[in-house]
Amino acid sequence: MITLHCGHAASILAHLLIPYYNTRTDEYGGPLENRARFHREVLTAVREAVGSDVAVGLRLGVDTLDAPLGLGDRGLRADADTPRFIEHMDDLVDYWDFVIGGFDWAQDAQSSRTAAENFEKPWVGGLKAFTTKPVVNVGRLNSPDTMVDIVKSGQCDFIGAERAGILDPFLPNKIHSGSIEDIRECIGCNYCVSRDIGTMPIGCTQNATTGEEFRRGWHPERFTQAANHENDVLIIGAGPAGMECATVLGKRGMRNVHLIDTADHLGGSIDWVAKLPGRHEWRRLIEYREHQLRKLGNVEVILNTPMAVEDILDYGAGIIVTATGSHYTRDGINPHDRTAFGLEAVLGERLLTPEQVVRVGAAIGQRVVVVDSDGYFMGPGIAEMLAQRGHEVILAARGEHIGEYQRYTREITPTLRDLRHLKVGLRVETTVTAVGPDSVRLSSPDRDDEVIAVDTVVLVGTRAADDEMYHGLMARRDDWHANEVSAVYRVGDCVRPHFIADAIFSGHRLAREIDSLDPARPLPFIRERRIIGGGDDDFLLDAPAQQPVFLNLSHRQRESKT
Amino acid sequence: MITLHCGHAASILAHLLIPYYNTRTDEYGGPLENRARFHREVLTAVREAVGSDVAVGLRLGVDTLDAPLGLGDRGLRADADTPRFIEHMDDLVDYWDFVIGGFDWAQDAQSSRTAAENFEKPWVGGLKAFTTKPVVNVGRLNSPDTMVDIVKSGQCDFIGAERAGILDPFLPNKIHSGSIEDIRECIGCNYCVSRDIGTMPIGCTQNATTGEEFRRGWHPERFTQAANHENDVLIIGAGPAGMECATVLGKRGMRNVHLIDTADHLGGSIDWVAKLPGRHEWRRLIEYREHQLRKLGNVEVILNTPMAVEDILDYGAGIIVTATGSHYTRDGINPHDRTAFGLEAVLGERLLTPEQVVRVGAAIGQRVVVVDSDGYFMGPGIAEMLAQRGHEVILAARGEHIGEYQRYTREITPTLRDLRHLKVGLRVETTVTAVGPDSVRLSSPDRDDEVIAVDTVVLVGTRAADDEMYHGLMARRDDWHANEVSAVYRVGDCVRPHFIADAIFSGHRLAREIDSLDPARPLPFIRERRIIGGGDDDFLLDAPAQQPVFLNLSHRQRESKT
Repeated sequence: MITLHCGHAASILAHLLIPYYNTRTDEYGGPLENRARFHREVLTAVREAVGSDVAVGLRLGVDTLDAPLGLGDRGLRADADTPRFIEHMDDLVDYWDFVIGGFDWAQDAQSSRTAAENFEKPWVGGLKAFTTKPVVNVGRLNSPDTMVDIVKSGQCDFIGAERAGILDPFLPNKIHSGSIEDIRECIGCNYCVSRDIGTMPIGCTQNATTGEEFRRGWHPERFTQAANHENDVLIIGAGPAGMECATVLGKRGMRNVHLIDTADHLGGSIDWVAKLPGRHEWRRLIEYREHQLRKLGNVEVILNTPMAVEDILDYGAGIIVTATGSHYTRDGINPHDRTAFGLEAVLGERLLTPEQVVRVGAAIGQRVVVVDSDGYFMGPGIAEMLAQRGHEVILAARGEHIGEYQRYTREITPTLRDLRHLKVGLRVETTVTAVGPDSVRLSSPDRDDEVIAVDTVVLVGTRAADDEMYHGLMARRDDWHANEVSAVYRVGDCVRPHFIADAIFSGHRLAREIDSLDPARPLPFIRERRIIGGGDDDFLLDAPAQQPVFLNLSHRQRESKT
Repeated sequence: MITLHCGHAASILAHLLIPYYNTRTDEYGGPLENRARFHREVLTAVREAVGSDVAVGLRLGVDTLDAPLGLGDRGLRADADTPRFIEHMDDLVDYWDFVIGGFDWAQDAQSSRTAAENFEKPWVGGLKAFTTKPVVNVGRLNSPDTMVDIVKSGQCDFIGAERAGILDPFLPNKIHSGSIEDIRECIGCNYCVSRDIGTMPIGCTQNATTGEEFRRGWHPERFTQAANHENDVLIIGAGPAGMECATVLGKRGMRNVHLIDTADHLGGSIDWVAKLPGRHEWRRLIEYREHQLRKLGNVEVILNTPMAVEDILDYGAGIIVTATGSHYTRDGINPHDRTAFGLEAVLGERLLTPEQVVRVGAAIGQRVVVVDSDGYFMGPGIAEMLAQRGHEVILAARGEHIGEYQRYTREITPTLRDLRHLKVGLRVETTVTAVGPDSVRLSSPDRDDEVIAVDTVVLVGTRAADDEMYHGLMARRDDWHANEVSAVYRVGDCVRPHFIADAIFSGHRLAREIDSLDPARPLPFIRERRIIGGGDDDFLLDAPAQQPVFLNLSHRQRESKT
């Protein structure tokens, strides 16, 4: 199958079709038949070149949306020229792939924050009537129920779902075999998109194996029995990293895996983060793993169970994994100058962290300033949540942009739209330069200083690793032997607070390599080409190059060599 | 030679050395000897690993500069800890490579706009006294005179000059042989840096062969005689594209190359663009080519010579190349919505283009608004020039940032600093939403509308190709034969206004391929790996894959095949 791209207002076929771009006055401009002339020529030529054994389809941007984010009246509209174009081209097309989008693909590949499943239905829903050929639909088609529904309803014939495939390449087979709960469902965070926009290798929050299939040899569904499977493992902390680690260790056949948490629920911080506006689908991180853990006879989940270092040593597990997460600091380090913010000493109880706002539900005054040095979803999410509740909110970011990283997840445009609609005051390149008991002064290079009366300041600042348990266990290393503890590891935010994807990856990685020579240190992955002295072995997973080689830095080791 | 990186506050060695980052309380933190402990361990281990045949050097960031762009008192300073560190490490280091820089390398790899040659001397100049080992210096070391001077003066022993090497890999040989005027000197535009920051393949404004050595087989100094060298070539327009094309065609041994221009000088638009503040080194684009053209006996430069289509046809050249450039439009298309700005009808003579301001020297009122939809150096450059002359200037950009592309050339921070120092009012995400005879209304999402009294508006808008000559010649195709004209080509901005680098590349490319089957169409370059059916041939320049294969789109061609 060959799909030609005439979508997202972002290809020569799209540009010729859309009056906004096509201002030609020759036989390729003007009436629809002229603007579609090149399409007929190309499809005819491609058909001739590939013969009759290959299907040739057209991905059509059926609606370029309203201005200013879309092309407005000068675009292509699903209720105007689009049906005529479909009819005009139908004889040359083997299948249609319908999408929407303004200037690019941001409005097509939306996150769960701004678009529901099958959100493109209003534009693509009625178009099958204009073609005799099979139709593909896209648009956050993640859940098997939705997929089956829209095919059965006649909206389309085929499901187009790249993100669902990144999450779970075996999704179609799992629908076929009825293993619905085993489907790793997309949470719509657009972390995958952010890696693309940031020209980084692909990654996925839900699926730690994405992008690691070749270079680490990780199959998303296949796990080998661990060489040290006779061990019992205790995992402390049932957040994303701990749940993932327990799941993979369970599938690798460890004798017993106990996953304990002080809370009364699985999921760690995801449990409250998913309460932010538009983030409820992130709960699928918990739900998928909850189901997997339930199926594993060798894994036990133990909630409501606080434990001290002594209890852990005494537990009887040979391998201990701490996955104790992180917390937002009340007065942490400002990443822009590595000094303390200095807010807590003056504001006291008027200063709140995101957890206090969302998880604890602390009392919040009417006038709120959210100080954001985090730069992703949390600052805008808190501001949106409080503005929805009627607070007067100013969101002050030290960086150049509100929610910087949302530019990469392509959530920034709807985020700004929604914050402006809620009358949230937006300040970028802004620093708190003075703080009083009921006011803060905001300073910015191109703006006069503002003194803002506040009742509550929310600091979305740095997160600090909750690593006391790990260090407590390491400090008791002399007691491990007596307690039959052979190893202590840490995964997720308690190593370094980072993206949820990194936490899950961290738990997955340790479990995949729990039987390597030194599980604390990741095995090197296959490089595509070695810089010096490369050979065929560099492309083989089990080649000698897999064993890490490090310079010996300690004097003891150097001396023993001589 | 192995250089370890302890510079730009951007490596683990730098982070351990600098108190701003190193807040450890163990034997690796605190006093200088502790902060340098890891360096001694690493250098010792590297020495042991590589033996005595390899020199091991340290690139040291000798000064992390003042806050806020640098690390201030918590950084490493050339007049404080740096000399002590050099003395402390000198026994383990074979050579030193001194650089400066705050949070990253932006202040080290500065452009010619903000830094003179050898601008790092104030920091690195006195440090050779603290070492017995050879010293490398860097810092816009471009011209052979500067290089020789600072070595002879004892400031350093070796010149470090990456950009000079990108420009002219044979620079050392040319100094050695005394071919000083043949050195292709860096103009300091940081286009190379912008390609790096933008994760694009490397490129260079002055040297069109940069990055094309392998994939196009272009040696910067070697040219083959053209198969059609018996032709005479007329090039119309002596701007960057025309000059480059004439130079390369001259070196490829064309019988006669005539380069004509209506102006009284070489260089086209560069002649006035280089008058913008800090851009005078861009004149090297002209000077290098002027020297090359002078040396070529088969190239003649003819200035002050306007010609019409009829004159060109009648000229007697078999091959004609138009290189007629582009101009800033007075009321061109706003790239953000592809509508006209609508300024000219209201403002009349009060509306000026960059050329009118800089080249013509038109009369300019006291209060100026510069409307920038171009997004690179021109808008900020005009604003800076006028503010320097005492005008009250507001610079209004439609995009998210002032001089957007200067973020990639890493010029944006000093640009903003200088504009703010000159009290230029900066407005981003700003649109002109109303215009009166002596005022404009500026609108922006997060700011109240402003009505600004103006005497002059400068529109840094779209550039339009000056392609009348090309189209005029193409319309006379029936007369080519009688005039012994075999081909008409176009290069540079008259094809599509773009970067200067693109214009020079365009002229170079045509001249390199003037004897290909279809010189108007670039030959495909070597792909590193063919997607389907690749083989060793894909890595060979003269393999059959070099000849382009295109689908036949015209009916005539299709019919002739059957």
